[in-house]
Amino acid sequence: MAGNIFGRILRVSTFGESHGPAIGAIIDGVPPNLALEESDIQRELDRRRPGQSAITTPRKEEDKVEILSGVFEKKTTGTPIALLIRNQDQKSKEYSAIKDLFRPGHADYTFLKKYGIRDYRGGGRASGRETATRVAAGAIAKKWLEGENVTIRAYTKSVHTITTETIDFDEIERNVIRCPDPKKASEMIALIEEARKEGDSLGGVVEAVVSGCPPGLGDPVFDKLDAYLAYALMSIGTIKGVEIGDGFSGTRLKGSQSNDAFFMENEKIRTRTNHAGGILGGISNGEPLLVRVACKPPSSISKTQTTVNTEQRETEIRVEGRHDPCICPRVVPVVEAMIALTLMDCMLIQRTIK
Amino acid sequence: MAGNIFGRILRVSTFGESHGPAIGAIIDGVPPNLALEESDIQRELDRRRPGQSAITTPRKEEDKVEILSGVFEKKTTGTPIALLIRNQDQKSKEYSAIKDLFRPGHADYTFLKKYGIRDYRGGGRASGRETATRVAAGAIAKKWLEGENVTIRAYTKSVHTITTETIDFDEIERNVIRCPDPKKASEMIALIEEARKEGDSLGGVVEAVVSGCPPGLGDPVFDKLDAYLAYALMSIGTIKGVEIGDGFSGTRLKGSQSNDAFFMENEKIRTRTNHAGGILGGISNGEPLLVRVACKPPSSISKTQTTVNTEQRETEIRVEGRHDPCICPRVVPVVEAMIALTLMDCMLIQRTIK
Amino acid sequence: MAGNIFGRILRVSTFGESHGPAIGAIIDGVPPNLALEESDIQRELDRRRPGQSAITTPRKEEDKVEILSGVFEKKTTGTPIALLIRNQDQKSKEYSAIKDLFRPGHADYTFLKKYGIRDYRGGGRASGRETATRVAAGAIAKKWLEGENVTIRAYTKSVHTITTETIDFDEIERNVIRCPDPKKASEMIALIEEARKEGDSLGGVVEAVVSGCPPGLGDPVFDKLDAYLAYALMSIGTIKGVEIGDGFSGTRLKGSQSNDAFFMENEKIRTRTNHAGGILGGISNGEPLLVRVACKPPSSISKTQTTVNTEQRETEIRVEGRHDPCICPRVVPVVEAMIALTLMDCMLIQRTIK
Amino acid sequence: MAGNIFGRILRVSTFGESHGPAIGAIIDGVPPNLALEESDIQRELDRRRPGQSAITTPRKEEDKVEILSGVFEKKTTGTPIALLIRNQDQKSKEYSAIKDLFRPGHADYTFLKKYGIRDYRGGGRASGRETATRVAAGAIAKKWLEGENVTIRAYTKSVHTITTETIDFDEIERNVIRCPDPKKASEMIALIEEARKEGDSLGGVVEAVVSGCPPGLGDPVFDKLDAYLAYALMSIGTIKGVEIGDGFSGTRLKGSQSNDAFFMENEKIRTRTNHAGGILGGISNGEPLLVRVACKPPSSISKTQTTVNTEQRETEIRVEGRHDPCICPRVVPVVEAMIALTLMDCMLIQRTIK
Repeated sequence: MAGNIFGRILRVSTFGESHGPAIGAIIDGVPPNLALEESDIQRELDRRRPGQSAITTPRKEEDKVEILSGVFEKKTTGTPIALLIRNQDQKSKEYSAIKDLFRPGHADYTFLKKYGIRDYRGGGRASGRETATRVAAGAIAKKWLEGENVTIRAYTKSVHTITTETIDFDEIERNVIRCPDPKKASEMIALIEEARKEGDSLGGVVEAVVSGCPPGLGDPVFDKLDAYLAYALMSIGTIKGVEIGDGFSGTRLKGSQSNDAFFMENEKIRTRTNHAGGILGGISNGEPLLVRVACKPPSSISKTQTTVNTEQRETEIRVEGRHDPCICPRVVPVVEAMIALTLMDCMLIQRTIK
Repeated sequence: MAGNIFGRILRVSTFGESHGPAIGAIIDGVPPNLALEESDIQRELDRRRPGQSAITTPRKEEDKVEILSGVFEKKTTGTPIALLIRNQDQKSKEYSAIKDLFRPGHADYTFLKKYGIRDYRGGGRASGRETATRVAAGAIAKKWLEGENVTIRAYTKSVHTITTETIDFDEIERNVIRCPDPKKASEMIALIEEARKEGDSLGGVVEAVVSGCPPGLGDPVFDKLDAYLAYALMSIGTIKGVEIGDGFSGTRLKGSQSNDAFFMENEKIRTRTNHAGGILGGISNGEPLLVRVACKPPSSISKTQTTVNTEQRETEIRVEGRHDPCICPRVVPVVEAMIALTLMDCMLIQRTIK
Repeated sequence: MAGNIFGRILRVSTFGESHGPAIGAIIDGVPPNLALEESDIQRELDRRRPGQSAITTPRKEEDKVEILSGVFEKKTTGTPIALLIRNQDQKSKEYSAIKDLFRPGHADYTFLKKYGIRDYRGGGRASGRETATRVAAGAIAKKWLEGENVTIRAYTKSVHTITTETIDFDEIERNVIRCPDPKKASEMIALIEEARKEGDSLGGVVEAVVSGCPPGLGDPVFDKLDAYLAYALMSIGTIKGVEIGDGFSGTRLKGSQSNDAFFMENEKIRTRTNHAGGILGGISNGEPLLVRVACKPPSSISKTQTTVNTEQRETEIRVEGRHDPCICPRVVPVVEAMIALTLMDCMLIQRTIK
Repeated sequence: MAGNIFGRILRVSTFGESHGPAIGAIIDGVPPNLALEESDIQRELDRRRPGQSAITTPRKEEDKVEILSGVFEKKTTGTPIALLIRNQDQKSKEYSAIKDLFRPGHADYTFLKKYGIRDYRGGGRASGRETATRVAAGAIAKKWLEGENVTIRAYTKSVHTITTETIDFDEIERNVIRCPDPKKASEMIALIEEARKEGDSLGGVVEAVVSGCPPGLGDPVFDKLDAYLAYALMSIGTIKGVEIGDGFSGTRLKGSQSNDAFFMENEKIRTRTNHAGGILGGISNGEPLLVRVACKPPSSISKTQTTVNTEQRETEIRVEGRHDPCICPRVVPVVEAMIALTLMDCMLIQRTIK
């Protein structure tokens, strides 16, 4: 109940602090006989890794994953898969300066109120570093979903006021902001560079499209597919909003505009539009899933801010260290991972119904 | 795992189809010695009930609740509280016309794909009628939260293109759209009347403010308070988007604008702004919680639509019956109920930490 | 977490006090398209009902079940099945005499210590009456298991010092003690009659044999099939011991005697003996499951006992009322129900693996 | 749902195969500010370790534990505690001989039927080696329970036909069979030596007494304290029976003998006898908890046995390797660990009620 286990049939337990010896995950419920090697996981981790480009934090974490169990002769056995990532580039001293300060926008204050104690080094458990274990676990789900012909693609939709105008999936991994519109990508990168020079940071929107999702996923009432996706995605620290299909803009449509008309195509039931984002009544309808998340601007900025210390005195703070001026490009693989874990879980649950 | 149980310590199991004999809920985990009577629950059900005003469905459901267990001499005993609501105004015949058609925007098609069978009468389990059991369960949570000085207030923030400009909590229950701005309320009502005459429907945004929420609620990583709220709210059938604090508009801020500066007020640590919506790192910080949800326009409209039937032939449909042209005023108590259940659950979990 | 929900994929939530208006259950996760009528459930309830013979309590409870949801045109739809049983023969006045006393062997004292309040009428939630909802839910599981060719048969193995010597399944329902050995049945019944005249009660052992259980059920480590059965059965109020296969007597064997040798029979792998009770390493091996439970003598006896009252004064008590002198014959259907719920749950989980 | 997570508020996820790189556990839900060091855990692991005496397996596993997270400056922080134990003495070659054989009494056959694949090296996940992670996790629970004045003591009650006659807790750790009766301990050890020479193995009974358990633990209906203990203990691979209090012998008592009379002692309500083993109606009553488990004779014996191979041919097998002729002394710390995890979980849950 302490919040570190995700999923129902497929259950992911994660652990680890930013500056402890290691982070990792146990993934329980992966069906046997899935081909799996460390390189399958490493590939995804490398997409999330710090230091991968000029616009991400220059921290050096190799994020080298080790599989400790659940795989025998390069196949899953049905038993829990444990993944271990040793921490490396911990400059804990940098953080002792902020030991007694509550960084605005961070969880320093709330952790202390919750637990009465906190591991202040690099944000401890509240560090975005925990998302590496999501990506590692999600890589297994992605591998499994490949075999089911489900493909998840996330990308940066907007940075601050700049929004993607075209969507070419092939472009996503060709630019460091992971934007499917190369022209807008350049503008975004320039804006981020500028913010970094100011010691400031920028927010953005990440969008994901899932193709090949079979109809029938998600459960009525509380465990609707949209609800589970919202839960999965909003649990990523930086995310403060989730939309399915039209989301908020759909509230300005009429029912006659918003309802997606059914029609027949190649003997399959389809919808002419996809305002619903592929989910009707909480259950997937076979159309692509469309999901959008709001990433707040990273809280770690080097501009001077006013705050309070643990002695309850007002003071000033400058968060030094090596931070991301815009988290979108590194959130992309995390979003994909959380969607993958959610969908795999839903597909396994659906097997119990038929 | 079939999606009809909500919560972790406080667990709500619901049942019931729109046109079956009854709907109801079991609420397990309510602490003993809470004063509770049927009237506490009835009051909330009456706010959600159909037929309450000119702009809601004219269906006549008394929604009379009976407490079957868990209460002895007007106090909870710690054992499960079962609530029963008999269905009354079921005009099932109206629905036999659509027995073989998939209504656009509804779950008819997806239920059939999921289960291979469906109770087509009035939407069956997929009917918005199930939200009555959420409101009934939520009424108990609200009663309990009152004793903890937590107050939840939801209201219609916008209908279609009309948005509230002022917020006066006292106005909310004074108009049938439950808008805190009486001037805008009138405009909204007029627009809804117009849509109804056209046989169409309108979407809108509902916002909620929670005051008195103590710091420390929510768990790091997967069970962040924002994640649990998003899950709880997105599970309401009509909702397709959830925002915490600034949500999507916050993506157009810089970190220096978005971070809420801490300061001291009356020896308490507070923040000068509340962009974070009262949640930092997934844990409540003691500021008011701010949540916003996107309600799509109701799918039941009497305008002619194109669709497909169960024989996979294209055809036309007009959804007759008695429907809501805008669901916002009736979603307001449902949103409050889901927030109440979430917060009560989190407060009980927090007791295990200290 | 308050203990009133059983199961993982198949989840049963129950409610109800002995002397409240009703008891009931919600069963979530039953696959769609199972033929189901009230009579399927009533048949099992009648086997558990009070007043069914001279050696059970003469209380008159019709235990008439009503299906409130989840069944449409005599088939399950995949949505939650709610079952309601109204209470009838409540002589609550009988209990006001013991309102301030702690009955030895009962949960009066422990409920008060746990909750600080108790519904003293007839034991409230702690009454054996709650097992009616287990039997009702279990009847659905039994119906489903029939379709999978799994048969569960429980019977009274011993009463006090008298033990069954022969096992003829056809005899079980022919005598009121539900003993598969007609000769021993008569002796058991005579002994029970004697105990009742003394105002005393007798314990006994109930045994169950499951045939047709497929190999592969149960999960390694914590959720072994034996562990889940032990949990399911020990949760029945009267049960204080559970054995799988040889159980305690197996501790007096050597490994060379206890290991069941594998051999081939009709191209199937079988074991020559079944000391393991059909479960190896927590997973069913295809042999019959063998389970035994210890039922303590019922705590309600009319003999005078010494006890303490709620004022903490020592005093005497005679538990008047209409009680069972030996609970075994009425526990038999409860044991079958709990095994059925456990196995159905395990079979649904096993579907997620293949 | 794959069976590798134990508990409700306190949740333990374990992983690891006998001959993989490592085994370990994540313990989520430990309250913050508990003093904890690796030595607290190592002490318990050393009690379970192979090679600790002449009557246990001579395998050499140092079982050195490393804390990877959740502890900061020697105190728990409330975040998940990950424990890692690297495997060392893996003689995997020994097992390639039995790669294609199903060892009688082992899970080789059932794992293959369940998963269609198995890691045959040393039993893989089905190896008793997984209990090291239970002991490690349980050590944390024991440390926490110490602070609540709860003490758990388990010991060997019987080996084969030899049963303890006196109980002196101080004797338990003074002999290698962990028997509280030094005279019987010597007899047990002699009998085990004899069995080992024959290439055979012996079963036994382990008993546990918990003192200081507060009243109010356990939940009515499904999650009774006895049910949770039975689940926890029966999940240990070697255990095939569980009794609470009198257990099976109590079925030969009358109600008037079995009911524990309440009386007053030092202004506390107590019972004069403890047939109920400290649990009434599934809830602890403040008396010592009494639990007994049946350990089957270890399945690994070097005597020749008949069996079947993976090609479904009948054949013979001799299980070479380094095995325990009687598992009781090494099960003692595992039983204590599982009881500790169960009680700590129940105590945390009880906090949500008051």
